[in-house]
Amino acid sequence: MKEFELIQKYFSDRGPKRKDVVLGIGDDAALTRVPQDKLLVVATDTMVENTHFFPDTSPRSIGHRCLAVNLSDFAAMGAEPAWASVAITLPSVDEAWIEEFANGLFEVAEYCNVQIIGGDTTQGPLAITVSLSGFIPENKALLRSGAKAGDWIYVTGSLGDSAMVVAAKLNKLNVSTEALVQAERKFDFPVARLAAGQVLRRAASAAIDISDGLIQDLSHILKASKVSAEIDVANLPISSAVKACLDEDSATVMALIGGEDYELLFTLPEEQKGFLEQNATAMGVEFTCIGQIRSGDNGISLVKAGERYPTPNTNGYQHFSSKEQ
Amino acid sequence: MKEFELIQKYFSDRGPKRKDVVLGIGDDAALTRVPQDKLLVVATDTMVENTHFFPDTSPRSIGHRCLAVNLSDFAAMGAEPAWASVAITLPSVDEAWIEEFANGLFEVAEYCNVQIIGGDTTQGPLAITVSLSGFIPENKALLRSGAKAGDWIYVTGSLGDSAMVVAAKLNKLNVSTEALVQAERKFDFPVARLAAGQVLRRAASAAIDISDGLIQDLSHILKASKVSAEIDVANLPISSAVKACLDEDSATVMALIGGEDYELLFTLPEEQKGFLEQNATAMGVEFTCIGQIRSGDNGISLVKAGERYPTPNTNGYQHFSSKEQ
Repeated sequence: MKEFELIQKYFSDRGPKRKDVVLGIGDDAALTRVPQDKLLVVATDTMVENTHFFPDTSPRSIGHRCLAVNLSDFAAMGAEPAWASVAITLPSVDEAWIEEFANGLFEVAEYCNVQIIGGDTTQGPLAITVSLSGFIPENKALLRSGAKAGDWIYVTGSLGDSAMVVAAKLNKLNVSTEALVQAERKFDFPVARLAAGQVLRRAASAAIDISDGLIQDLSHILKASKVSAEIDVANLPISSAVKACLDEDSATVMALIGGEDYELLFTLPEEQKGFLEQNATAMGVEFTCIGQIRSGDNGISLVKAGERYPTPNTNGYQHFSSKEQ
Repeated sequence: MKEFELIQKYFSDRGPKRKDVVLGIGDDAALTRVPQDKLLVVATDTMVENTHFFPDTSPRSIGHRCLAVNLSDFAAMGAEPAWASVAITLPSVDEAWIEEFANGLFEVAEYCNVQIIGGDTTQGPLAITVSLSGFIPENKALLRSGAKAGDWIYVTGSLGDSAMVVAAKLNKLNVSTEALVQAERKFDFPVARLAAGQVLRRAASAAIDISDGLIQDLSHILKASKVSAEIDVANLPISSAVKACLDEDSATVMALIGGEDYELLFTLPEEQKGFLEQNATAMGVEFTCIGQIRSGDNGISLVKAGERYPTPNTNGYQHFSSKEQ
C-alpha cells in the first residue's frame, strides 16, 4: 500500500497550478473556488482494460484518453474545464508504466489548463476513472434537448478512424500500414473539440460528442429533443485513411456506426449559419453539414443521391470489406 | 452495452432531488450551483473487489461503503456533502446485485441529502469509484496541518471492529458469532461522522478520518503539522466486541493499527475543551481523549501507566491472540 501512496505523490507536483485551487492533492479532500456567475459542470468516465483499450495500448495513450474523453463531454456542452480527480487501479507498481501514463495525462492537462486536484491509487485490475469539474455561464450549456425541426445537422472533423483501428486490431480488416498509423494517431490521442464547443454554445441548438457512433449519439439528441433526422450519407466527412482502405459502402457504414472519434455532432438553426461561417476559424476544426432535423419521432432516415440508404445495424457483428485484399 | 445504459437509468430517478442541481443524470455532464460564499470540496475513492472488499460481501454493503468512505473524508474536513458521481464497473449485468447495491447507496444518499448527478457504468472486474462534491465556508476547512504542541488528541466512537472482521474472515482469529455480528455491522455499514466534523471545524486544530489505522493516520497529521504525539494506550476506546474476543495487548494493537473504522481523529487546543463539552450532543457520537501533541519530529510515543509501550508494526503480518481458544 505504501508504494501506491508514493504514486499518488508522483502526480501532486506536476501540471498547471490554477489560482482557483485553494487546496490540491494531499489532504482528505480538495478545495476549489467556483466563479460567482457560473454553474459547476461535472463529468465522469471510466476506462477499463479489455473493454475500452487493448492490453497492448501504450500507457501514454491511456493517460491521454482518460482525460480527453471527459474533456470531450465538456466540449459537447460548451463548458470550460478546470480540475480533475484521477482514480487509478493498477495490478502492481510498474514505475515505467506510471511515468508514461502521467506523461500522457499531463500533456492533455497542460494543454487545457486542467489541474489534477486528487484521486485515488489502488491495487486491482487496470482501470482509470476521471472525474472532471469546470464551469459554464448560467443558461449557456449546450444540451441534447434543444434541436428543432428545420435545424441543420453538422459534425466536426472526420469520422471512422477509431472504428477502423479497432476492426484492424481484431483482425476483421486488412489495412495498409500507412493508413493504420494515420488512424491510430486519432484513436490513441483524441483531441476534445473544446474551442468548437465554446463557439457553438452561442449558436447551436443541441450538441453531443461522438463516443458511441454517429447513429447512436444522434439518436440521443433526437430522443431528448423529440424530433427526427435525415442524413445524406454522401456528405459524411469520412476519414481519408478509411476511404483509402475500405470500399465506399463499408467506409460509409464505419463513419455511421464507429465510436470513439470524439468529434462533435451539433444542430444549428438556419439563422445561425452566418454566425458559424464567421467563426469558422475560432472553431479550430473543420465542420460539415450532413443533414437536417425533421419533426416527428421517425428516428433517423438515411439518403444518398435522393434515394433511401439502408440503416446499418449498430449492435452485433458488422462486416466491412477492404478495398483490395 | 445497451444493458449497461439501462443500469445508468436505474440510478437516475431515485434519491434526493436537490434544488442546487440544475441538470442531473442524462446529458454529457451534470450542472450544479455552488453557494457564493463557499468553496467547492471534492473527494474521490475507489473500492476494488479483493482489495477493498471480499468477494462474498453483500452488494448492499458495497453500495453503502462506496459513498460512506467519501462522506468520511468530508467529515474529516467539516464539509457539507451535496452531489456524487458513481462509476460502476461490473463483470456482467446481474439485476439482483444492482438492486441491492443501489439500495445500499441510496440509503446513505437519502440520509445525507446527497444527489447522484452522474457517473458511468462499464463492463470489467468489479470496482466502484465515487467522486463526491460539496461545500465549506471559506477558511473553515479542518486540515491535517493545524495541530500544535499541547493540543489534545481525540478520537470519536470506538476502534478495532473492522480489523477484527478482516482477521476473522482471513481465518487468522477465532471470534464468537455474537462479537462478529456486532463488529460486522460497523465494518459493512460504516457511518461517516459528518455532524461531528461540522462541530469540530469551529474548535479542532486538525482532523483526519481513520481509514488506514490510528497510527498511520495520526502520522499524516504529525507530518503535515510538523509535530510529535504521545498516546496513552490505556485510554483507547477499544470496541466492546474486540475487548470481548481478544486479550488486552492484542486488542490494543488492533485499535492502534486497524483500518477502515472511519472514526475521526482530531486535535483540540486546550482552550477549546469547554466548547467541545458544551457541544457533546451535537457531535452525535462519543469522543475520547487519547493523548497530546508534542513538539519536534519524534513521531508517535505510546505509553501505558506511565511506562513506554511498544509500537506495533503497521506493515506486514501481525499476530493477534484470541482471549480463549
